[in-house]
Amino acid sequence: MKNNAITAREVDFAKWYTDVVMAARLADYSSVKGCLVIEPNGYAIWEKIQNVLDNKFKETGHRNICMPLLIPENLMKKESELINGFSPEAAWVTMGGQKVLEERMCIRPTSETLFSDYYSKVVKSHRDLPMKYNQWCSVMRWEKETRPFLRSREFLWQEGHTIHETQAEAEQETLDMLHVYNDFFHNYLAIPSIIGKKTDKEKFAGADYTYTVEALMYNGICLQSGTSHYFGQRFSKAYGIKFLNRENNLECVYQTSWGVSTRMIGALIMVHSDDYGLVLPPKIAPKQVTIIPIGKDEEIINLAEDYAKQLNDNNISCYVDLTDKSPGFKFAESEVNGIPVRIEIGKRDLENNKITFARRDTREKMDKSKDIDVVAYVRTLLDTIQNDMYKRAVERRDALTFTAHNLEDMEKILNTQPGFIHGDWCGDEACELKIKEIRGCKSRCIMEDETLIDGKCVCCGKEAKKHVIWGIQY
Amino acid sequence: MKNNAITAREVDFAKWYTDVVMAARLADYSSVKGCLVIEPNGYAIWEKIQNVLDNKFKETGHRNICMPLLIPENLMKKESELINGFSPEAAWVTMGGQKVLEERMCIRPTSETLFSDYYSKVVKSHRDLPMKYNQWCSVMRWEKETRPFLRSREFLWQEGHTIHETQAEAEQETLDMLHVYNDFFHNYLAIPSIIGKKTDKEKFAGADYTYTVEALMYNGICLQSGTSHYFGQRFSKAYGIKFLNRENNLECVYQTSWGVSTRMIGALIMVHSDDYGLVLPPKIAPKQVTIIPIGKDEEIINLAEDYAKQLNDNNISCYVDLTDKSPGFKFAESEVNGIPVRIEIGKRDLENNKITFARRDTREKMDKSKDIDVVAYVRTLLDTIQNDMYKRAVERRDALTFTAHNLEDMEKILNTQPGFIHGDWCGDEACELKIKEIRGCKSRCIMEDETLIDGKCVCCGKEAKKHVIWGIQY
Repeated sequence: MKNNAITAREVDFAKWYTDVVMAARLADYSSVKGCLVIEPNGYAIWEKIQNVLDNKFKETGHRNICMPLLIPENLMKKESELINGFSPEAAWVTMGGQKVLEERMCIRPTSETLFSDYYSKVVKSHRDLPMKYNQWCSVMRWEKETRPFLRSREFLWQEGHTIHETQAEAEQETLDMLHVYNDFFHNYLAIPSIIGKKTDKEKFAGADYTYTVEALMYNGICLQSGTSHYFGQRFSKAYGIKFLNRENNLECVYQTSWGVSTRMIGALIMVHSDDYGLVLPPKIAPKQVTIIPIGKDEEIINLAEDYAKQLNDNNISCYVDLTDKSPGFKFAESEVNGIPVRIEIGKRDLENNKITFARRDTREKMDKSKDIDVVAYVRTLLDTIQNDMYKRAVERRDALTFTAHNLEDMEKILNTQPGFIHGDWCGDEACELKIKEIRGCKSRCIMEDETLIDGKCVCCGKEAKKHVIWGIQY
Repeated sequence: MKNNAITAREVDFAKWYTDVVMAARLADYSSVKGCLVIEPNGYAIWEKIQNVLDNKFKETGHRNICMPLLIPENLMKKESELINGFSPEAAWVTMGGQKVLEERMCIRPTSETLFSDYYSKVVKSHRDLPMKYNQWCSVMRWEKETRPFLRSREFLWQEGHTIHETQAEAEQETLDMLHVYNDFFHNYLAIPSIIGKKTDKEKFAGADYTYTVEALMYNGICLQSGTSHYFGQRFSKAYGIKFLNRENNLECVYQTSWGVSTRMIGALIMVHSDDYGLVLPPKIAPKQVTIIPIGKDEEIINLAEDYAKQLNDNNISCYVDLTDKSPGFKFAESEVNGIPVRIEIGKRDLENNKITFARRDTREKMDKSKDIDVVAYVRTLLDTIQNDMYKRAVERRDALTFTAHNLEDMEKILNTQPGFIHGDWCGDEACELKIKEIRGCKSRCIMEDETLIDGKCVCCGKEAKKHVIWGIQY
């Protein structure tokens, strides 16, 4: 029984996406144009993501910090590429209380300026380095078109900002954090993301270079899902972040930043979910198991409570749905909300020593004896679901991964079924611009470790320098 | 050896306070006027606080949510007392990107308006109630004078907002959350706060009534440290938050909100700290134990690492200080940072089978055999420190708690040694205003459960209605 509140994915992908967000009550539009309310079901996913990543950041020597929300215009202007990149979409505070401010301030679109200003005050010597800080916060970019989780004026993210004594150490940090993200995508979100460098045209304003985590959605559209930037001494020169090096000379620090956002929730939906609602990988599901008693027999309720206790005691998050709704309604609700495993306990089945386990991902039902070792069974089932979801996502990604040798190939693919498109590139921005004319297709990332396909630029046919992945993006 | 970076508390309390904040590197001034950088040492305390309180909120049935940062002026205006209360100190966004906005928006000073707007859309029936949501975020109030953690333009807090079917349930929620806060102050922060209702003059703009958690600082100045508001139907009428009740009639919900902020970090400092720096109650200290090896003997390092492993494995947060600094410097640093327990391991002592434990709160040193059960000993020591800190705070509070029978008593106390001052009150705002003329003294809270002192208003001498606690506030 399909969920009537959800448009079929094959009929209208964009509408299906929004319908899933609303039906699972992940987020709602607010009265503030372009800004969302992230509702408890959505925020709980963000808390799971935060929890895992925050531990990874701390294990790798980072500490959390809290910078101001506002950036005075002059501070922003010190690094000109950054202000040029973000100024057109900044929100400006011009009044404090009843008074017009002498200098307007923008709500942070990103915090390189504030971190740089802070670091310039506190760092003195190579003994103070590295400084590896992170903050969880919201940022604001005055976007014209918005879509829940994918693009909104305000969104939640984390931004890591680090400074180092040497270029080599900073470059290693940029790469390390890229791998923290990529591992998280593969092992927790069950999304087989790919990683590589952005072209100069697509890199972050003010970065020497940008690494990106790119994910492919079910419909073949690409999503830039995380970035890690190497800044060299660009900001440290502009903001005067100097330290006494081991030779006792003043030197500018080497700097990085890296971030992922609530956009990842959008990726989760568009990679895994279906016409019945949300499908969540067990490792990121706030609730992993729901038990639905059919009827109110004491024996049924007791068994449900006993299972729930055993599961929760073993770090498997579980709840018993004791609300007054009908069993059918509860089944549908657990599906729409993406609870990975559902246990149904009914009177007649119980008389036959039988209970039912249902997988959300495949919607398969398994009858088991009520005397089953519920913890061991559910633990294995959750692992299976996690692995199967990943495998299916890999299969889908591979099925939507193509190779183009020339512009006709490119056009044909993009007009038939877009996806990740491998194509060599000469390195010329003019070719990027020309390819962009085909349905807005952009370079996703440079595959530095892969050899060239045929050594000819997919656009101009001249000698290629880079193996690039191309695609249409959100 | 007193810390030279810290002014003596008896000499200049205000300067002592700021010196402790800076010396312990809890926060730093930023280039954004009136806004702080909360540095990693300070933010780690906030994370401990968040962790404990967030669990309490969830245990009591609350879920986290994320509302927008901005409030359109018209939405704010729907409840007139709120706009009157906050408008003079709001920061206004008037430009988005390159364009002047049609309607200006303020950065949230508090989010009653946004929650009310959201609730008005999602609540339909009594079956949807209660809705008990909370958010952790920053808010902005354009204060003129600022002081780290006590008053700044931007600060971090949590704001709980709940809606209920009945007045009784909402009033119970207001009281329940007050007690969650008060228990947290007593049991975690080791601060013997008092609780009661605010007078009408001092209550929150838009509330029917406000409960407050009041704490007394070491110098006898009071700090409003948490509040819990009952709104009745004030917002639900203004914003149209209606539900079908059990009689199938449309009714407006009953509403509460409650919050605590990074101000609690200020309270921690001003209640417990000393001339050597920060003193933290063990239950809220991000790091509870530091081990300082004196010298680099393998035996010493091994023992230090072994102790650290045992402690961390038993949920006692511990680190070994292996930096190149001198032992004396490390001792002072662990004091200034408020690490509750320090373990010193030296070569000669070890030859005599001896190691040294130092308590941060009393600065007492205890020699013990190296074969001691370190986990059991440290666990007991941390409990003792937590309890002793609380006891000393109670003694200080009691020593600075006075009773006034008339205005001369009041003046004498306030001009000699301010503190919590018990005094009866007739209920007339004119008397509050007159008392305020004495060094800005205000009613802190009404002690509803306490009998009158002598039945006469401490100001006008007429018949008293309330037993009130008065004091000078931050």
